[in-house]
Amino acid sequence: MDRLTKFRDEMKKNGIDAMVIYNLEGSDQPSTWYISGFSGTHSLVFISQENAYISTDSRYFTQVKEQSSFTMFPITSDKRVKDILKFFIEKEEAKILGYNASNISVKLYNSLFGDLDIEEIKDCESIIQNMRMIKDSEEIKNMEKAIKISEDALQETLNHIKPGKSETEVCARLEYEMKMRGGELAFPTIAVSGARSALCHGKPSNKKVKEGEFLLFDFGARYNGYCADITRTFSVGTPSDEMVKIYDIVYEAQVKSVQAAKAGVIGADLHNVAWEIISDAGYGDYFGHGLGHSLGMDTHDGAGASPSNKKEIPEGAVITIEPGIYLPEKFGVRIEDDVLFLKNKNKVLTNFDKKLMII
Amino acid sequence: MDRLTKFRDEMKKNGIDAMVIYNLEGSDQPSTWYISGFSGTHSLVFISQENAYISTDSRYFTQVKEQSSFTMFPITSDKRVKDILKFFIEKEEAKILGYNASNISVKLYNSLFGDLDIEEIKDCESIIQNMRMIKDSEEIKNMEKAIKISEDALQETLNHIKPGKSETEVCARLEYEMKMRGGELAFPTIAVSGARSALCHGKPSNKKVKEGEFLLFDFGARYNGYCADITRTFSVGTPSDEMVKIYDIVYEAQVKSVQAAKAGVIGADLHNVAWEIISDAGYGDYFGHGLGHSLGMDTHDGAGASPSNKKEIPEGAVITIEPGIYLPEKFGVRIEDDVLFLKNKNKVLTNFDKKLMII
Repeated sequence: MDRLTKFRDEMKKNGIDAMVIYNLEGSDQPSTWYISGFSGTHSLVFISQENAYISTDSRYFTQVKEQSSFTMFPITSDKRVKDILKFFIEKEEAKILGYNASNISVKLYNSLFGDLDIEEIKDCESIIQNMRMIKDSEEIKNMEKAIKISEDALQETLNHIKPGKSETEVCARLEYEMKMRGGELAFPTIAVSGARSALCHGKPSNKKVKEGEFLLFDFGARYNGYCADITRTFSVGTPSDEMVKIYDIVYEAQVKSVQAAKAGVIGADLHNVAWEIISDAGYGDYFGHGLGHSLGMDTHDGAGASPSNKKEIPEGAVITIEPGIYLPEKFGVRIEDDVLFLKNKNKVLTNFDKKLMII
Repeated sequence: MDRLTKFRDEMKKNGIDAMVIYNLEGSDQPSTWYISGFSGTHSLVFISQENAYISTDSRYFTQVKEQSSFTMFPITSDKRVKDILKFFIEKEEAKILGYNASNISVKLYNSLFGDLDIEEIKDCESIIQNMRMIKDSEEIKNMEKAIKISEDALQETLNHIKPGKSETEVCARLEYEMKMRGGELAFPTIAVSGARSALCHGKPSNKKVKEGEFLLFDFGARYNGYCADITRTFSVGTPSDEMVKIYDIVYEAQVKSVQAAKAGVIGADLHNVAWEIISDAGYGDYFGHGLGHSLGMDTHDGAGASPSNKKEIPEGAVITIEPGIYLPEKFGVRIEDDVLFLKNKNKVLTNFDKKLMII
């Protein structure tokens, strides 16, 4: 069943006559791209049971026709977004609308949906979220390409790292290598070393990389709309015994979690596989985040392997598996793969070696 | 008068007891940074006439204390954001709250502000927007630094451009050079050549740069929270007569608009300075955007020199001046400087030569 047909089935179940997706400056780009094929940063999508429309401005008139099979209505200075929305509502006789509540600001909501001749408007973002969580083979190919770009870039970057280079410099190199291979950035790169590797979401700084430190990269390319998300932690020169010990615990937790990954597993249960290993080793207090999240057109693309997710992870989901231990003021280790959940098994999409590597 | 004092004066004029700024994954980072000093990506700011509070999670406990003078309340698994907000409201006996309606999604608004014991909550984003539009000397220094990083990076990038390189490759180089100089990206870089230079917001592609084409860069670094925004259009090899003619028109429009820039000028009037020159030359239909926008902690930081802005541009504003002519399927030219508006004069913050340069 194609996406639009499935989406319309879900619209019926949710009791809405039409779905509105407004994408301003990329605010709802992934869902727009997913359902309509249009990858630009400004559009109004309107889907009823009979018709599917897309509006955009003059920057994108050519692109939208190339990318989308939806019927195009141009946004102009005479026909603004609100006028076009009213026209769609009237034409399709839509009384109950759905929208994505996470991807529209209160200000935009009021200006777009205020003063409409409708009965009700309701948040239906779960429709597209649930659909986007389950990837088809074309989507997996895009993710594999994003991962290959990321891994090739990391491999090349390793040739340019030496003590005395700053985190900012090695980060700039890694991002450059991804872009040279046709990737965009899936998210701002984390490149942190020494005590700063204990900062889960540390920004690269002008701190210089030193011998005997960990250097942690959490990074990923975006290709054709799909994201990679990979973490590797390297030892710059010979690691201390404590560094090796912590790395080994995280490595074991990561490998065992990957082994337990398959369609149908409860998110929280999978998290616990890693948590128990780390906790039994005495470091439970230093693993403060969830084991992983769904990945796709967004970096956090739905529920994943977190303590709060009591649902089964469905077949076709791609979830990151990324345990870590962070010893404040000392160092941190995290290892992250992107894993496709299948019936009774999984496929690890990332290929970069994850054993402790000295660079 | 310091920022917080001025902000509290404006709160009184707007009739609110307290202002709430919620910043999730950087959703309201610039305003949070501006008023509290905290530059992280997760915080709840609460300002009353007597007190100013900031809450963040464990990633930022150290950083928030270093950066902000506001009283810190930690967000933990026991004390979540909503609990903390309720505590602030009760403690400060706040009945009328203000918030920024453009920087919070409907979903977040409902979960944060639903079910509170208050009388009213109203959009007060104009308070901080108006304050942020007028820059002090420290802010101008940051912008000058962001501009210097951008211009040095562009100068270096010119050494790496030759026919046969793709737009993506030269874009990757420019971004790399900005990052190597300590800049983040203010916005996604536009690097487009040949017929693609006629796309106002074109994304770099794998199209190769060729002799006899324009190559247009619209780019900028962000430094210490402040953005540069610069456009230069270069001729790769010898330009055609038509290319020279169009460049000269845009150049004249840009120079004359800069000459007319000073505090007190009406935004639309300044736009018209450029528009009349371009229109008189017969290309009015090919200059489809506003002359410029306010610049600061956001790339579009308030009203600027657009046809719709009937207000005076205040002293201390930094506005981009960026006329362009775009001939579909042929080429486009845009030249953009960042201009500080002063009493009876202005200061052009950008320094990169803007005469037609053959590379």
